[in-house]
Amino acid sequence: MAHGDIVLGPNQYGKAEVRLVRVTRDTDVHRVEDLNVTTQLRGDFTDCHTVGDNSHVVATDTQKNTVYAYAREHGIGSPEQFLTTLGRHFVDDFAQVAGGRWESQLYAWDRIGVDGEPHDHAFLREGREVRTTLVQMDGPDTWVLAGFTDCTVMKTTGSEFHGFPRDRYTTLAETDDRILATSVTAWWRYTSADLGDWNERYAAIRDLMLETFAGVHSLALQQTIFAMGRAVLEQFPEVAEVKLSCPNKHHFLVDLAPFGLKNPNEVFFAADRPYGLIEATVQREGAPEAPQAWATVAGFC
Amino acid sequence: MAHGDIVLGPNQYGKAEVRLVRVTRDTDVHRVEDLNVTTQLRGDFTDCHTVGDNSHVVATDTQKNTVYAYAREHGIGSPEQFLTTLGRHFVDDFAQVAGGRWESQLYAWDRIGVDGEPHDHAFLREGREVRTTLVQMDGPDTWVLAGFTDCTVMKTTGSEFHGFPRDRYTTLAETDDRILATSVTAWWRYTSADLGDWNERYAAIRDLMLETFAGVHSLALQQTIFAMGRAVLEQFPEVAEVKLSCPNKHHFLVDLAPFGLKNPNEVFFAADRPYGLIEATVQREGAPEAPQAWATVAGFC
Amino acid sequence: MAHGDIVLGPNQYGKAEVRLVRVTRDTDVHRVEDLNVTTQLRGDFTDCHTVGDNSHVVATDTQKNTVYAYAREHGIGSPEQFLTTLGRHFVDDFAQVAGGRWESQLYAWDRIGVDGEPHDHAFLREGREVRTTLVQMDGPDTWVLAGFTDCTVMKTTGSEFHGFPRDRYTTLAETDDRILATSVTAWWRYTSADLGDWNERYAAIRDLMLETFAGVHSLALQQTIFAMGRAVLEQFPEVAEVKLSCPNKHHFLVDLAPFGLKNPNEVFFAADRPYGLIEATVQREGAPEAPQAWATVAGFC
Amino acid sequence: MAHGDIVLGPNQYGKAEVRLVRVTRDTDVHRVEDLNVTTQLRGDFTDCHTVGDNSHVVATDTQKNTVYAYAREHGIGSPEQFLTTLGRHFVDDFAQVAGGRWESQLYAWDRIGVDGEPHDHAFLREGREVRTTLVQMDGPDTWVLAGFTDCTVMKTTGSEFHGFPRDRYTTLAETDDRILATSVTAWWRYTSADLGDWNERYAAIRDLMLETFAGVHSLALQQTIFAMGRAVLEQFPEVAEVKLSCPNKHHFLVDLAPFGLKNPNEVFFAADRPYGLIEATVQREGAPEAPQAWATVAGFC
Repeated sequence: MAHGDIVLGPNQYGKAEVRLVRVTRDTDVHRVEDLNVTTQLRGDFTDCHTVGDNSHVVATDTQKNTVYAYAREHGIGSPEQFLTTLGRHFVDDFAQVAGGRWESQLYAWDRIGVDGEPHDHAFLREGREVRTTLVQMDGPDTWVLAGFTDCTVMKTTGSEFHGFPRDRYTTLAETDDRILATSVTAWWRYTSADLGDWNERYAAIRDLMLETFAGVHSLALQQTIFAMGRAVLEQFPEVAEVKLSCPNKHHFLVDLAPFGLKNPNEVFFAADRPYGLIEATVQREGAPEAPQAWATVAGFC
Repeated sequence: MAHGDIVLGPNQYGKAEVRLVRVTRDTDVHRVEDLNVTTQLRGDFTDCHTVGDNSHVVATDTQKNTVYAYAREHGIGSPEQFLTTLGRHFVDDFAQVAGGRWESQLYAWDRIGVDGEPHDHAFLREGREVRTTLVQMDGPDTWVLAGFTDCTVMKTTGSEFHGFPRDRYTTLAETDDRILATSVTAWWRYTSADLGDWNERYAAIRDLMLETFAGVHSLALQQTIFAMGRAVLEQFPEVAEVKLSCPNKHHFLVDLAPFGLKNPNEVFFAADRPYGLIEATVQREGAPEAPQAWATVAGFC
Repeated sequence: MAHGDIVLGPNQYGKAEVRLVRVTRDTDVHRVEDLNVTTQLRGDFTDCHTVGDNSHVVATDTQKNTVYAYAREHGIGSPEQFLTTLGRHFVDDFAQVAGGRWESQLYAWDRIGVDGEPHDHAFLREGREVRTTLVQMDGPDTWVLAGFTDCTVMKTTGSEFHGFPRDRYTTLAETDDRILATSVTAWWRYTSADLGDWNERYAAIRDLMLETFAGVHSLALQQTIFAMGRAVLEQFPEVAEVKLSCPNKHHFLVDLAPFGLKNPNEVFFAADRPYGLIEATVQREGAPEAPQAWATVAGFC
Repeated sequence: MAHGDIVLGPNQYGKAEVRLVRVTRDTDVHRVEDLNVTTQLRGDFTDCHTVGDNSHVVATDTQKNTVYAYAREHGIGSPEQFLTTLGRHFVDDFAQVAGGRWESQLYAWDRIGVDGEPHDHAFLREGREVRTTLVQMDGPDTWVLAGFTDCTVMKTTGSEFHGFPRDRYTTLAETDDRILATSVTAWWRYTSADLGDWNERYAAIRDLMLETFAGVHSLALQQTIFAMGRAVLEQFPEVAEVKLSCPNKHHFLVDLAPFGLKNPNEVFFAADRPYGLIEATVQREGAPEAPQAWATVAGFC
């Protein structure tokens, strides 16, 4: 192209938020898999953009249909496995598709307890966190990213914040005992797309992060989230890198002195906005390079 | 007033959504109470509306301060108890306050498990349901309403829907096996404001509703919610009436026939809108009359 | 029924949030009507609740189909007219339907301007307010309620707040110049269901409310909303009563003194929660009685 | 670092969603600027993450205070100008701050009309679109990105979709007349941070995009959004690149045939999920390189 020419740059398209619920009924004890799937294709779609030629455009409606058909034909098993199977179909079966990204949110369900026993086919939606998965493909290459969001945690002690610089605009008091609360969004990228045991690994990583949150005596939210990422890299060699984006959900101690009352860290105002926003990556030196999608998850870097 | 005169009708005012987190730290094993409180006063406020005379107007800021101060002075214990204590202060201590309503949402927190043990001061926010409470006072009279919302449940079988009338606009097929899913909003009103044991009673009523949802073989969502309300009235004589508002969260069986596939109740599309909306009250004959606030909860009647 | 018997109380059911967009294409200058419709039926549905007999249950799917078919057969014109036509069908054509309520939200669209001219068939969604309508029927009787929500307004001066009582828990300073901001939810009920000119009347009432908000020098938000309602009753004899529910969206003056700066009512923090919540009705003496639905709109009374 | 060492990777922190309303009162005709500001710093913060040493950590509370103080001291003028002034303070005045990103959403307000005249100090919040701005700094370098979101547009004709490939999973019918609706999220990056006239330029670019949406006879949403981006690059040489992320908000023609009715493109169901998602960049060959932040806006690439 000549300097100054106007051209199509990176582009992708697909169907977003395909709500898929799959029930496994091979025994009377049903199982539920509840996903929100987004499928996006990349490849040779220039003519569609420039002259409206759709001859290469696998319709987003077709992509949606394929999600449902594949859920029936191949099952789900884990979002990592399902998205990989789905993505491979698009990349391998359509010449014009060079790659893409496939994402899901997974919503967990518990069984309702009846007389102390978990029910066979009645479920209660858990609200603890949303499990997130992203598979990127470029031709034969596949990357698997995993994480979770909306995981709200709090420590009522074991958190300090002091020693920060003070300038003209600083009014914050130092504290050696505060509430630390955040809603964790975490992503990690695996070194391989063929690990298997995705569900168990996911649960183990999430639990390790929560335990680390609980265990670290915190001098800054930065310290806590770095420790959470480091713990994962130390115990899971199949994880190349961890990214965390954590709002500092401020719980302000209410000043009760005007009412003649002390407030020994008991009564707090949970604020909505503004909130601190702390984001960090924790990396393993020499790990394989990240795919393009890694730059776009969890905010920033 | 003369016919045709324009006058102030019912009115109330207060502070809404006061986010209150109270930590009980009497031992190393902390406890958390997390509430969203709304306080509204009724009484002699005509001059404020008509001429802007605020001499009777307990400022909404003062109401907010009182919420925090009362949480410190009196503790919370249960939302029913806290709202009653709070409301009584406004009604009894201000001559111009004839009554009011005090509401809360309660968000539950679990302890984070570390090495299989619940942590002393690290918590994970449960997402199962939001507990709701409403106290109304008119002078010396107090009513307590309780309930929950955002409780999403599903049965993957044991639900039918057929036998409905067919007219010119009817296209729905009958089914003897469908997914039944809903997000329950329930309210009930107690016969007394002095019951005590509010937390245990709440949990027992909620669990009974869930068990009933699981246990009823459903021919209509109406049948299920009536059974849920009836079960509560049968087992809890202190409950005068139950009200349920339940969206029918449609899970449509995906038609896979165009792709040469059967779909034996396995793959579903979870739709957002529109949704069925089923609302009913279940009453005990001869129960005491409902307070005004009962007409305004859970939607409709 | 015997004292203590458990019985079905008030109930209703239907299809909620039917998203309906109707395009009128009789000329090249298209017109768009964009509604979110909820239809709910009341009547003889006891057997459905108690034994799962659906022989009276006009399926919610049928109700949805009817919304779309009626939009085609009868057009919309105004939500008041459309909901009345729709409701009359259900009440008159099904013996088991004694009444019901039909609601809508209407989203307005502007034409996109091209070269200074409004485009024939390209539209931009306005975000100013959502127009709300509710029609209730009990047998032959019809009531029409109208209103709007999500109408966010602000005055940057001309608002004071002082003279309120001070008690132990009062810390708020008095002010004679503050920002007054709210998001108005308004409802009014008409004396007749056969007025016609619904769109023009709606626009005139909304504009009058906004003008009144702008014009009143406010000593309390209560005073402002009472004036808004009174203005409507004074100028529109066909309105029997007005109800307003208005959060006081606090804009707190930021204390810049620690930074050596004055803040002459220039820099504000717009808070989310908590917020004041001011609700009032303005009535005309001798107006016809309100329908049941009136108790359930806009919050409270 | 040794191969396999675990290290801190990219990180940033700051205060998010600082709600800032600034009123200019130099005459009786007030002006309102309403922003939601996020400030994030990058630099030498390793010790905070690894050992909880906060001596470099400009507190997020201080960042918030600075936002308000700068709004008073320097005014706003445009978000581009305000964020640049704000960011330069952090980068230049703190040795440990190497760069950062500063973002805002701007909410527009109209004046309320009274007797046909715009009011001096009473405002109505527009809901048309949210204006977005992002300034990135790396040491002395500054980049300015601008855009908007939540701009919902629709064409009721002048849109076709056909000629797409059909495979086993394709069921979508071709159409030569459909509704095309989307909610535009657009970003563009400027070639310079010193352009001035930011508000006029923003409005002109937004209007051009809307006019292009209206004017293009669309064979695919891809074609429409490419044309929107190309138009901007053609008319604004100071824009280096445009990025668009546009959900295809499906309006499905309702099948009224079962009711004996035709539906000549008049009655539509506006679906929520799933939706098509079309994303593209339009580039000028030889334009300056994009900053890191460009990879993180509007979704994907």
